[in-house]
Amino acid sequence: MNKIVLAQIDTIAGDIEYNSKKILDCIKRAKNENADLIIFPELALMGYPFGDIFVRHQSIIKRQLSALDKITEQTNNITALVGFVEPTLDVNKKPFYNSVAVIQNGKIIRKIRKRLLPNYCEFNDYRYFEPFDEVSEIFEINGEKYGVIVCEDSFNDKSFFKEKSIYKIDPVEEIMKQQPDTLINCSCSPSRTGKEYFKNSLFSSIAKKYNVNYIYVNQAGYADNLCFDGTSRIYNKTGNLVLRAKSFEEDFVITDNFIGKVNELPVFMEKEIDFKKFDTKYTNDLARTYHSIIFGIKEYFRKNGFTKAVLGLSGGLDSTICAVLLADALGKDNVWGISMPSRITSDASKNDAKVLAKNLGIHFFEVPLAPALDSFKNMFNYAFEQVQTEKFAKSTTIENLQARTRATILWSVSNEHKQMLPIATSDKSEAYIGYATVNGDMSGGFAPIADVTKTKLFALGAFLNEYRTQKNVIPQSVLEKPPGAELKINPKTGKTVCAEEENMPYEFLDEIIWYVENFGYGFDDLIMHQFYYETKNKITREIKEEWINKFYWKSKCAIYKWHILPPSVIVDAHSINSVEYHQPIISKVY
Amino acid sequence: MNKIVLAQIDTIAGDIEYNSKKILDCIKRAKNENADLIIFPELALMGYPFGDIFVRHQSIIKRQLSALDKITEQTNNITALVGFVEPTLDVNKKPFYNSVAVIQNGKIIRKIRKRLLPNYCEFNDYRYFEPFDEVSEIFEINGEKYGVIVCEDSFNDKSFFKEKSIYKIDPVEEIMKQQPDTLINCSCSPSRTGKEYFKNSLFSSIAKKYNVNYIYVNQAGYADNLCFDGTSRIYNKTGNLVLRAKSFEEDFVITDNFIGKVNELPVFMEKEIDFKKFDTKYTNDLARTYHSIIFGIKEYFRKNGFTKAVLGLSGGLDSTICAVLLADALGKDNVWGISMPSRITSDASKNDAKVLAKNLGIHFFEVPLAPALDSFKNMFNYAFEQVQTEKFAKSTTIENLQARTRATILWSVSNEHKQMLPIATSDKSEAYIGYATVNGDMSGGFAPIADVTKTKLFALGAFLNEYRTQKNVIPQSVLEKPPGAELKINPKTGKTVCAEEENMPYEFLDEIIWYVENFGYGFDDLIMHQFYYETKNKITREIKEEWINKFYWKSKCAIYKWHILPPSVIVDAHSINSVEYHQPIISKVY
Repeated sequence: MNKIVLAQIDTIAGDIEYNSKKILDCIKRAKNENADLIIFPELALMGYPFGDIFVRHQSIIKRQLSALDKITEQTNNITALVGFVEPTLDVNKKPFYNSVAVIQNGKIIRKIRKRLLPNYCEFNDYRYFEPFDEVSEIFEINGEKYGVIVCEDSFNDKSFFKEKSIYKIDPVEEIMKQQPDTLINCSCSPSRTGKEYFKNSLFSSIAKKYNVNYIYVNQAGYADNLCFDGTSRIYNKTGNLVLRAKSFEEDFVITDNFIGKVNELPVFMEKEIDFKKFDTKYTNDLARTYHSIIFGIKEYFRKNGFTKAVLGLSGGLDSTICAVLLADALGKDNVWGISMPSRITSDASKNDAKVLAKNLGIHFFEVPLAPALDSFKNMFNYAFEQVQTEKFAKSTTIENLQARTRATILWSVSNEHKQMLPIATSDKSEAYIGYATVNGDMSGGFAPIADVTKTKLFALGAFLNEYRTQKNVIPQSVLEKPPGAELKINPKTGKTVCAEEENMPYEFLDEIIWYVENFGYGFDDLIMHQFYYETKNKITREIKEEWINKFYWKSKCAIYKWHILPPSVIVDAHSINSVEYHQPIISKVY
Repeated sequence: MNKIVLAQIDTIAGDIEYNSKKILDCIKRAKNENADLIIFPELALMGYPFGDIFVRHQSIIKRQLSALDKITEQTNNITALVGFVEPTLDVNKKPFYNSVAVIQNGKIIRKIRKRLLPNYCEFNDYRYFEPFDEVSEIFEINGEKYGVIVCEDSFNDKSFFKEKSIYKIDPVEEIMKQQPDTLINCSCSPSRTGKEYFKNSLFSSIAKKYNVNYIYVNQAGYADNLCFDGTSRIYNKTGNLVLRAKSFEEDFVITDNFIGKVNELPVFMEKEIDFKKFDTKYTNDLARTYHSIIFGIKEYFRKNGFTKAVLGLSGGLDSTICAVLLADALGKDNVWGISMPSRITSDASKNDAKVLAKNLGIHFFEVPLAPALDSFKNMFNYAFEQVQTEKFAKSTTIENLQARTRATILWSVSNEHKQMLPIATSDKSEAYIGYATVNGDMSGGFAPIADVTKTKLFALGAFLNEYRTQKNVIPQSVLEKPPGAELKINPKTGKTVCAEEENMPYEFLDEIIWYVENFGYGFDDLIMHQFYYETKNKITREIKEEWINKFYWKSKCAIYKWHILPPSVIVDAHSINSVEYHQPIISKVY
């Protein structure tokens, strides 16, 4: 049997030097270990995702092909599978293939070309690549026969997908006619809710169906809001998982005879998600959500040369969860939490912020907002005499001013530290309905929880208090109080206005989001739908209609904000992140 | 001969009610005029551009088809060509065609389906649509024969494009075998530098080549950063232009026997652009640039329910040009210019701002920044003791604080006026190298000149002083002084630092942008290239390398800013607007 290396690396799009150095280092190490075959992820040499970079900057292709030549020279006594962008050199075709070079003893012996080119959600393969219309030829190493497919090529098994099959051909079925002993899938597959269960079922069923060893090598990394979890693996001919690389980090796994360690997944990650049911506990998806975001933060900071983060700590849920995630990703010494109370901030909130910072061991201090707010108000009193104005009475001017002043402080603190980024703490539920301030809590160099809904954040908070080595860092009061931005007082109650008063119950809102994203529900479907919230609370048809209408109306006004969201991590099965979903600001969906 | 209407309408994606009302109104009017045929732009019923809206919100398709039924009922005694999204109803195909319904006397007699699906730059047709693989059948009205093609279907004439032809088939060649008298092209084609010359040459050559009347109906409108100029037209069988609708506004043109008015284009718009030569005068493109932006502002504000704009007036070029554009688009009474001087703002700048506002007749007042800046500085003195800090010495904290405080004032003023948007005044040259402040001059509800380079802005300023009815509104000093943000003092000279000192000459920078965008130049090409700037100024090879390197380095750091740019109007042949060009923040192009 051959000795095989699964080189689960991360890459940077267009950074041919970075990628090829990593590939060469892995090949060297594999040769030292007397490996016969080393497998890299899809497009390892170009890096992925790449947007439009090599369409506009054509010299990248040239540099990439030179680098491939240098890699080819280093393949004496080993076979390497290296993903790259291959020019088609055919004026009647698109300019490139998405290819894997099979390099053996200093020669490229095969160019395997991707056949199924996904063009939905975050994928845009067809924009760049020509689909290859022939079956790839298998190759041998020491008498063992290997077939290679590229990512999506494995995702059209007719017996698995049934009527949901979206392509005409099944590249696996076609290549299996050549009876390879082992089928290798070079991939770049981002982590999303429910995807691990799906991939595991599919790959295992293919291995069993064709009685073939199935090797899956996935990128581990983060770019462009996408988190690639790695979790490369091998199934044997009976469809049993016999080896699994680490998740959410790079790995270099050597195997003889397909025997290896089956690394643990984040707890519950392999479980099936019941999309038909909206679950406020999100039980199966919390550890994966946590690890996706941590990995995303780490990689975003590292690859952009940042090491430190500063965020506002309000004592509320969003900033609390962000602080925990940042401390775990960057180390507690690299996180600054600033409490920036205004005159209406409650003592309880101030205390929650302080306790959290102490529990986490992050830097903490307080900057009261009053001096800046007072200066601005004086300036406004002058400025607003020049224009017809509501003079703050019914407007959101002063509410927004608080959020913007806080962001100005955070950006200034980050300015003073060359490797520091300010953090945008707004969440997915609020992003959907635009309940976040432009240049305020929406603003930052990174937005860790922009694809996590409020109910999921509550579940995540409780989960983290249990799951992390250090227990209960999040004060119980943070997980119990109703969310609210503490930006204004309700004159009737004398208390700060909570978010659900202004909008709708988060449980209801998040269930709308769930069914819109996962099932394309429209207004009529939502009205007919029995909400989980309704099973516990009696609401009239009028209220229900009002909330659903509010969702559509507020989302419409929020699209502008979706367009200027800071970089984040796509976590859920679907999102409003523009990498996946694009909606023009001038448009109407209901 | 039949009486024909070119219905050059604007549409809103997914707003089926808005679009169908407009279509029905036009049909009614056409019937009142005894027209035989009315032609709408591509996808008129769905609206264009639509992003992913009907993929996620599936009920839109249902509503669109009901609306098509209602339109169909209103076609007694007339033929209407209505673009719509047509379900393929075939599991082996993508779910939709990009279609035109030929509706006659209450029946859809043909469904013309788009065959060439562009998937480059701002186009994403292939993401949504199945390419139709058969030739469309022509139809008759009173014995006259008509063929219909959809937009890109007209863009693969082998004799015109020669080796640049990117598709295998030419739908025009195929449909012309049926010998229609008239070929109709339903389009949604955005205005870009050089496009009018290109379209005119192509359409005219097709009319002549096939001895066919050629009718082109284009959308007039703005959405998603794209400006559709309308400019629908008819060429007769000898390729002569015999009718042209208005540009940059809706139009309803009736013609008998292909006779009609040839409306004037914005001056020079029909001229060829010499892309091979970088031209700091941009002579041919200034009127088109001006009208694109004006139309974009008008439509963006109208469709989103805004009527007023507020911007900071620094006395510099960017804010000056923005003020003129806004006054022309929204009316002078709807524009507020605020001068927000800090202690280092020169009297000359303050005066230029005042003179401009007076010339334009817009609202104007001054809010000195000092009170807010002082409060922030005091707060920072406290805050920065808590962290290791450079205490403003070498940092950009105080520079950025000025820009952010100004933006906070603008957003607050807009908060106090329900239909007012704050304006981001940063330009394309500065966007490229990130020379604009996050939450500062980069921030706003709309960015009118984000796709206009600095040299083009100088040319545009001079042009506007001549071109507008009211001459010389822009003070000559604004067009003569070197650009600079007036955010800091150079300790050596005691004067505020000008932008070219910090970066490189704008003429040089803009020429880099020109060759990168239009020819995909890389570092090596740029080094070899003889810059226009070099013909007038002696620079060493070291300086040239330094500037080119600076371009790449600063662009890399600026990608984050590209991702959070406010809505704008794409003007040039190419841009960094994410609707056209996408580059992940983690990536490298040199």
